[in-house]
Amino acid sequence: MFDKTWINAKIAQFENEQIIIKENSFVAVKDKKIVQIDSMQNFEPSKSKKVIDVKNKLLTTALIDCHSHLVYGGNRANEFEQRLNGISYEDITAQGGGIASSIRATRAESEEEIYNNSAQRLKALIAEGVTTIEIKTGYGLNLETELKMLRIMDRLEQNHPIHIEKTFLGAHAVPPEYKNKADAYIDYIVNTMLPEVHKTGLVTAIDAYCEHLAFSLEQTKRVFEKAKSLGLRVKLHAEQFSQMGATKLACQYNALSCDHLEYIDEESIIVMSKSNTVAVLLPGAYYSLRETQSPPIDLFRKHKVAMAIATDLNPGTSPLASLLLMLNMAAVLFKMTVQEALLGVTKNAAKALSLEASKGSLAVGYDADFCIWNLKHPRDLVTSYLANALDYSVYAGEKVNV
Amino acid sequence: MFDKTWINAKIAQFENEQIIIKENSFVAVKDKKIVQIDSMQNFEPSKSKKVIDVKNKLLTTALIDCHSHLVYGGNRANEFEQRLNGISYEDITAQGGGIASSIRATRAESEEEIYNNSAQRLKALIAEGVTTIEIKTGYGLNLETELKMLRIMDRLEQNHPIHIEKTFLGAHAVPPEYKNKADAYIDYIVNTMLPEVHKTGLVTAIDAYCEHLAFSLEQTKRVFEKAKSLGLRVKLHAEQFSQMGATKLACQYNALSCDHLEYIDEESIIVMSKSNTVAVLLPGAYYSLRETQSPPIDLFRKHKVAMAIATDLNPGTSPLASLLLMLNMAAVLFKMTVQEALLGVTKNAAKALSLEASKGSLAVGYDADFCIWNLKHPRDLVTSYLANALDYSVYAGEKVNV
Repeated sequence: MFDKTWINAKIAQFENEQIIIKENSFVAVKDKKIVQIDSMQNFEPSKSKKVIDVKNKLLTTALIDCHSHLVYGGNRANEFEQRLNGISYEDITAQGGGIASSIRATRAESEEEIYNNSAQRLKALIAEGVTTIEIKTGYGLNLETELKMLRIMDRLEQNHPIHIEKTFLGAHAVPPEYKNKADAYIDYIVNTMLPEVHKTGLVTAIDAYCEHLAFSLEQTKRVFEKAKSLGLRVKLHAEQFSQMGATKLACQYNALSCDHLEYIDEESIIVMSKSNTVAVLLPGAYYSLRETQSPPIDLFRKHKVAMAIATDLNPGTSPLASLLLMLNMAAVLFKMTVQEALLGVTKNAAKALSLEASKGSLAVGYDADFCIWNLKHPRDLVTSYLANALDYSVYAGEKVNV
Repeated sequence: MFDKTWINAKIAQFENEQIIIKENSFVAVKDKKIVQIDSMQNFEPSKSKKVIDVKNKLLTTALIDCHSHLVYGGNRANEFEQRLNGISYEDITAQGGGIASSIRATRAESEEEIYNNSAQRLKALIAEGVTTIEIKTGYGLNLETELKMLRIMDRLEQNHPIHIEKTFLGAHAVPPEYKNKADAYIDYIVNTMLPEVHKTGLVTAIDAYCEHLAFSLEQTKRVFEKAKSLGLRVKLHAEQFSQMGATKLACQYNALSCDHLEYIDEESIIVMSKSNTVAVLLPGAYYSLRETQSPPIDLFRKHKVAMAIATDLNPGTSPLASLLLMLNMAAVLFKMTVQEALLGVTKNAAKALSLEASKGSLAVGYDADFCIWNLKHPRDLVTSYLANALDYSVYAGEKVNV
């Protein structure tokens, strides 16, 4: 006996990375899992406790945002406005702007205030069909505030129909109290924060920002070693502004993903392909920074590196709370194909979070997370942007009310 | 006695093109017009039939999209996908793609089908705070279908809480039956379509596409002459891909606006400044086409030409149904300031539609069209993108239900 069956659906699935459309189909759910997908001619109404008619609408697996910084205090709208008015990045940073201002705000604001503002952003993503999201810490940079960020994520997950993967990003920037003492800050991460954060049981992976303006290869390695000893998976902000070997380091630790990658070289891509690491591409940051060097899509294709796409939602360099918009930007700005873009927010995004066995595919045995769209074809999700594209989504077998 | 008063509002208005914030204010409405805006200390509850508490939320004038092609048949998602797969524009056009495919679809599809698909796009705009929109014909290119498009617009306006300005764009492209006979098609516009369309009483202005790949200056002039004789205002798609004198021609006819303008020169801008013509900038088309030459914002500033921003929503070169997104793109891609971007979708957008006496400003005597936002400051509308930024909008004094 099925719990629920969505009938008369136009189903879109991936088979061998190609989109297959099956009209007149049904999706049956039991215990929050998909248990049968088949043609309507094989549907027996008596076998389902509840039947929902989707009236030939398009039904796909739900969307996954595998890289976000959705929880933060304040915003950086005033700095953005200053830059438009001709004030330089350098002057803004000298005034205490940039990531330092988000750290101040995240430390200063109450848990309630940050929760409420983060919930609005999360609801915007839920309303467009996202049922799984990764959120990073990294605006606290002390134990108290990093734990506050994790509690906010946990509460967001409890109160909303969405699965949240929580990543510890202590090595996001050097906080002001460790100015010019980055190694001492790494000591603090490794000896104090990581063990305490790990004890909460909330964190499944750690991340770091390996770049000349952030942490060195050696510093990143120390964080990865500690993560490994705690049994935590790693991922890395890598080669966003320069090729410095960050990806190769991450792959030595069997990283889930390397993210950004505008400046990655072919040698590093070959290493990625051997370690099964996902390339997470972030067109929102590329767009917002007016970056001109695209990630080398052709080389990822050539070496069969799985590509994911995510919002990178953050207050500074990607204040765009829309994964649907990222689908369009992936096509327009990075020339990714419709298939690549859609795989990037489903199957490959699941892989970047080590969830590929349960999420990111519309198939028997997978979680009952799917979307019903007011669109004719899945390509319409990529080739245009329509905030009301979603009819409704289903999370863990339940219709989502936004 | 006021009909309704919105109390405890954080009001944002423009004064001398600068944003002024007034906390603890109220907006009183009578007969669909704003009749008083004042501090809460001057509010007398007994003077209003109904009182709505906005709880210190931000309240601004509503948004105006002054250039769209929202009504069309079909879509061009398959062509977009073909281009991503490496097929050239030329090959797609040779297969009957491009604007020709939208013309075929708009002629072939039923009024009901086009209405329903257009209504979805319109609802996406209404849901983000748009209460006035301009929509152009121009995918019919014969009398029957151009009239069908106008009837759809009329019905959209009757069934939705939005004001629609309807523009006749017969000179959008040469239809297939007039291939290589553009002058004969202009005859048909001038002698047949324009007089008939004018008789409907629905159209307030006419537009044309003056470009090497569309209509010449001389052909455009013939359409403008006829429009003038009928008492219709003119506007023009001008200097999108080349500087050819289109703007100067339009200004001779006291055009409401010239639109696109990536390639306009300073001499033409000086002419615009003297004719009071608005520069309507379309960042969605710039983005979708990956154009690299921005419209010369500095020169518009220097010569005090009013700038508006619009979606250009259309199936080919700007399939992005979001005016909020255009605000962000205007800042990111064109480096417009927060003030310029916001004036571009309010006061200056109203001016581009000759509605500046009644719409586009939050002031006494203006239409009671305004927005209540889940945002702290109007700059947040520009510096970030959040599809759920709007709490709710008010159109003609009534709360809009989406």
